Amino acid sequence: MENRTEISSLGEFGLIEHLTKNIELQNASSIVGVGDDAAVIDHFGKQTVITSDMLVEGVHFDLMYTPLKHLGYKSVIVNLSDIYAMNATPTQIILNIAISNRFSIEALDEFYSGVYTACEKYGVDLIGGDTSSSHKGFIISVTAIGEVTPDQYVKRNTAKQGDLVCVSGDLGGAYIGLLFLEREKKIYLENPNIQPDLESESYVIGRLLRPEARKDIIEFFEKEKITPHSMMDISDGLSSEILHISNQSDLGCVIYEERLPIADEMKNAAYKFQIDPTACALSGGEDYELLFTIDQNDYDKIKLNEDISVIGYMTEREKGTNIITKGESTYPITAQGWNAFKKNQG
Amino acid sequence: MENRTEISSLGEFGLIEHLTKNIELQNASSIVGVGDDAAVIDHFGKQTVITSDMLVEGVHFDLMYTPLKHLGYKSVIVNLSDIYAMNATPTQIILNIAISNRFSIEALDEFYSGVYTACEKYGVDLIGGDTSSSHKGFIISVTAIGEVTPDQYVKRNTAKQGDLVCVSGDLGGAYIGLLFLEREKKIYLENPNIQPDLESESYVIGRLLRPEARKDIIEFFEKEKITPHSMMDISDGLSSEILHISNQSDLGCVIYEERLPIADEMKNAAYKFQIDPTACALSGGEDYELLFTIDQNDYDKIKLNEDISVIGYMTEREKGTNIITKGESTYPITAQGWNAFKKNQG
Repeated sequence: MENRTEISSLGEFGLIEHLTKNIELQNASSIVGVGDDAAVIDHFGKQTVITSDMLVEGVHFDLMYTPLKHLGYKSVIVNLSDIYAMNATPTQIILNIAISNRFSIEALDEFYSGVYTACEKYGVDLIGGDTSSSHKGFIISVTAIGEVTPDQYVKRNTAKQGDLVCVSGDLGGAYIGLLFLEREKKIYLENPNIQPDLESESYVIGRLLRPEARKDIIEFFEKEKITPHSMMDISDGLSSEILHISNQSDLGCVIYEERLPIADEMKNAAYKFQIDPTACALSGGEDYELLFTIDQNDYDKIKLNEDISVIGYMTEREKGTNIITKGESTYPITAQGWNAFKKNQG
Repeated sequence: MENRTEISSLGEFGLIEHLTKNIELQNASSIVGVGDDAAVIDHFGKQTVITSDMLVEGVHFDLMYTPLKHLGYKSVIVNLSDIYAMNATPTQIILNIAISNRFSIEALDEFYSGVYTACEKYGVDLIGGDTSSSHKGFIISVTAIGEVTPDQYVKRNTAKQGDLVCVSGDLGGAYIGLLFLEREKKIYLENPNIQPDLESESYVIGRLLRPEARKDIIEFFEKEKITPHSMMDISDGLSSEILHISNQSDLGCVIYEERLPIADEMKNAAYKFQIDPTACALSGGEDYELLFTIDQNDYDKIKLNEDISVIGYMTEREKGTNIITKGESTYPITAQGWNAFKKNQG
């Protein structure tokens, strides 16, 4: 970035005007957008679905290896993913940020260009938000709003015994991407003359820095008239999430190691770190894939969809929550989510 | 607080469970609350109004003189105020917080007790949120959701020429409260043995630390069948807000100094600081009163309401935005909001 314009040169209202002046509302439900005390939405006989997440610099992202545009994009995606995980369609977002004066207008423009790219791709409107200063660091809070046909939302606690357990896409990539970037950061800090070679790991790094939300899966459900019995997105890691569904539905489950969807790029990268790819698929977070359970009668509808893997089934509570390994051993699934994993192995 | 329980002892999910376990949803529109990827609301033929604000420690509040319970209460109130300012009724909130490990569970419980007190008083449900860690400081992001009869929301840019300009309550108190607390903080830091005597200034300090949202005014409008032509809440200061309404409505206005609602407690406190109470009423922020314009034909309906003051009227654009002083001089209103004011005089 060649220019550096101080945020203070615009003032609070000038800054909001600068960042939001090109918004064109895309959804008929967006009645009042940015610029008033509040926004107004009208979902015309649908139910409104709403979620919110906070991203804190140094906790959820590291600006040393996260381009601001990717950060803006991902901040939106992680919230849209929660809306899709309710079997709903996102329609609007509200974006609050707090920034220190180490950021310039040009840096904020980069961030917002990622936000707007995500909004355009997923057809959502930015309808409000708040821009404050912080003493230190960059804090982002996104609220996403969506719509669903009345009572067609899908919760976590409504899995049924005998349901097939399914996941979209592949798992563990974002975690391996993080390991790479953390390693390159360490090398760079020790010797700034060494330029990182990340090209060969672009798949897993992309999984971390530029995730997508599974809009296509929700559209597939609608087309095939499938209503999952339960669903959630995989942000903390598969084992943590399957325990949520099992415990909240008062059921057990069996997962097969050989059925876990693992990309070759992730597997090869995991071997470089001498880590078991299965452990990454089970405990790595931030893939933003969907975990859902469906009636066995729906199997024929999904079996040809290459983006969906059946990894196991729901059992009665008393059988516990287990994984059966390729060697046919049975182990209980433990709640080793993203954070715990980072601490132990990262 | 006698006990100190570390947040890490509960873990993320344990913490959310601890903080939200006593929630009982009050609104029929709250269909799915805390505990899933997203919440679901159904406003049954009404339009949904939504707003979000971020509060950052050291920027928006100082924990040295802000009790955590009051902070929780105020975090909710400032967002409800924005919903009322649209002529809507708040129904739900979502609360995101980021906290460093200097806070204990007991401290968070204090904060949440203020949040729940506000929810109960204003009849809103806490339906979701996110709890993360921060490296430094306490960051709060609240999203408030409300409902309004279709097309009965009131914006800022729809004032009409000839409208009466009205404000609820009294102005400038929160700013003087801040001056007192900042002064006492300075004295205390210089000599910790001096205990502050704040009792005599409880009114203005209460205005800062424990504001209310003007639910009563919105209910009065409904009872009297008044729909203001334009409205916003006063968070940055009257002069800043009246300029928003004038500019966005492409009109001018005249405000009379003698009509500004000033509480005796504020006036007396301002004199102690040798500040003009009028300047406080114009430029002090955080009073969370409502500024609105109504048709002159509605005057008879409001004239007996002691919580509403008529302070001027809207003119054609060419006449500008002016204040007429008690000495009958005319001055242009300047956009000296809360932040600018703090810098110049605080």
